[in-house]
Amino acid sequence: MIVTVTLNTALDLTYRVPALTPHASHRVTQVIERPGGKGLNVARVLAALGHETVATGFAGGATGATLRDQLAATPVRDELVETAGTTRRTVAVVDTASGDTTQLNEPGPTVTAAEWNAFRARFTELLDGARAVALCGSLPPGIHVGAYAELIRLARTAGVPVLLDTSGEPLRRGIAARPDLVKPNADELAQLTGAREPHRATRDARRRGARAVVSSLGPEGMLAATPEGLWRATPPAAVKGNPTGAGDSAVAGLLSGLVDDAPWPERLTRAVALSAATVLSPVAGEFDAPAYEELLTRVTVTAETP
Amino acid sequence: MIVTVTLNTALDLTYRVPALTPHASHRVTQVIERPGGKGLNVARVLAALGHETVATGFAGGATGATLRDQLAATPVRDELVETAGTTRRTVAVVDTASGDTTQLNEPGPTVTAAEWNAFRARFTELLDGARAVALCGSLPPGIHVGAYAELIRLARTAGVPVLLDTSGEPLRRGIAARPDLVKPNADELAQLTGAREPHRATRDARRRGARAVVSSLGPEGMLAATPEGLWRATPPAAVKGNPTGAGDSAVAGLLSGLVDDAPWPERLTRAVALSAATVLSPVAGEFDAPAYEELLTRVTVTAETP
Repeated sequence: MIVTVTLNTALDLTYRVPALTPHASHRVTQVIERPGGKGLNVARVLAALGHETVATGFAGGATGATLRDQLAATPVRDELVETAGTTRRTVAVVDTASGDTTQLNEPGPTVTAAEWNAFRARFTELLDGARAVALCGSLPPGIHVGAYAELIRLARTAGVPVLLDTSGEPLRRGIAARPDLVKPNADELAQLTGAREPHRATRDARRRGARAVVSSLGPEGMLAATPEGLWRATPPAAVKGNPTGAGDSAVAGLLSGLVDDAPWPERLTRAVALSAATVLSPVAGEFDAPAYEELLTRVTVTAETP
Repeated sequence: MIVTVTLNTALDLTYRVPALTPHASHRVTQVIERPGGKGLNVARVLAALGHETVATGFAGGATGATLRDQLAATPVRDELVETAGTTRRTVAVVDTASGDTTQLNEPGPTVTAAEWNAFRARFTELLDGARAVALCGSLPPGIHVGAYAELIRLARTAGVPVLLDTSGEPLRRGIAARPDLVKPNADELAQLTGAREPHRATRDARRRGARAVVSSLGPEGMLAATPEGLWRATPPAAVKGNPTGAGDSAVAGLLSGLVDDAPWPERLTRAVALSAATVLSPVAGEFDAPAYEELLTRVTVTAETP
């Protein structure tokens, strides 16, 4: 099984309005509600690919209960730890005309020391039997900035490959704990390394401690620096659509390839194809399964010289 | 006891953000969640004034459960009827800098014929022992446009005074069923009568069937056309603040005066003072109790010639 960790889960609401006008009143024409937070998105895609998937992290209060009800309707196994605080909501307001999105994110509850200890115990139990672990998204209030580094050390001790997908200081500290894989986007990479040129920044990030770095370059695909070599993976053409969740789908593709012991070019092909198939899907964060199958045959992977 | 009816209840969320920018991402700095819908606001104010108050209408799903949990923490008695559909949310996004509000309203669930019948039965039971009834707000999907007219006839048959606070076609149909009191604002009045001049529009509305019409003129106070005469009630000075809920507080003031058998000038004084004390309160929809007591002595009521 694959374990995904979402410390800062959210109940994601998507509101459609004709066009958002500040200081006006709007009738929402469509409401979509679903379990959110990057790790839960990754888990949903992994489960759709047929992988046995477990989601852990925190959930609490009325919104946490709604999130867990909705998770129960998916093949993802719920191993979330209860918090006294109430799970946050995020609201994505989508203008129907332009497709542009305005995002409102609640801060989320503070996690107590006792809750963090309960989570660590649950995480350690789940490592027994895990084929891979993904640590995804931001840290909620109350959790120390070295939390991902701590979880990476636990996974390494248990011999379970670990992927980290976060940003800022938690990414910097996490990399130093030597995860097997990090998946920054261009902004996260630049923030981490100070370098804007993707090849240089990707290699710099790897020198900080990650066994492999896969940088997502948006519509231009991905760049991978690994012990086996450097690769660039490119989708057949720029795809148009909603990029929400494309990065999480890429993480799912990388994990899927990892647990199947696929060579790097195959892992990158899955990641780029899933990412593009997510942009193409009419529902934000879902992927278009026929498009994914078709894209798998059309992603280009080229080895690059260091 | 006073019965308030809210057919289209809502879980009201207030989000504070520094400033709302379309198509950007925002961290919400403060979240306030509370039972909403006009009738529930009226009930909360009545209870704060010391009146025994019952709230009925519909609630369902996870948001309905949260709303009822929160209502249980107030002195208002919960007589809401359960729906299979999920209670809507409303989101008020308040810019911290300017205080301006952007409103997003979910459509809410469709009420079934069986649920409407269950509500009518509950309403009829509650009329036994009611001193007054308030019918407040919009009609949810699935409820026929003459619903308020039907409830007004039930209340009249039971000999219970009934106040109607709604707009559009439900107001037009409701007035024809001869309620004791309607409380339109200037826009609702103009939409109903086609007249913009407040005196003329208020008297026109009364001729359509309401025993009394109290028109709210925003910061300029209220105008009342009643069988006992015409009055104008004015706050001591224009008050600055958040007008959210000021109209609902005015309804509570009118009901409070009605069940206390107060003469019209006293009823209008309560309504205007509560309305202004609500604008002055730092929390939207609450009223500033000391300001209310002080304003009671400073509202001016003048008899007007027809």
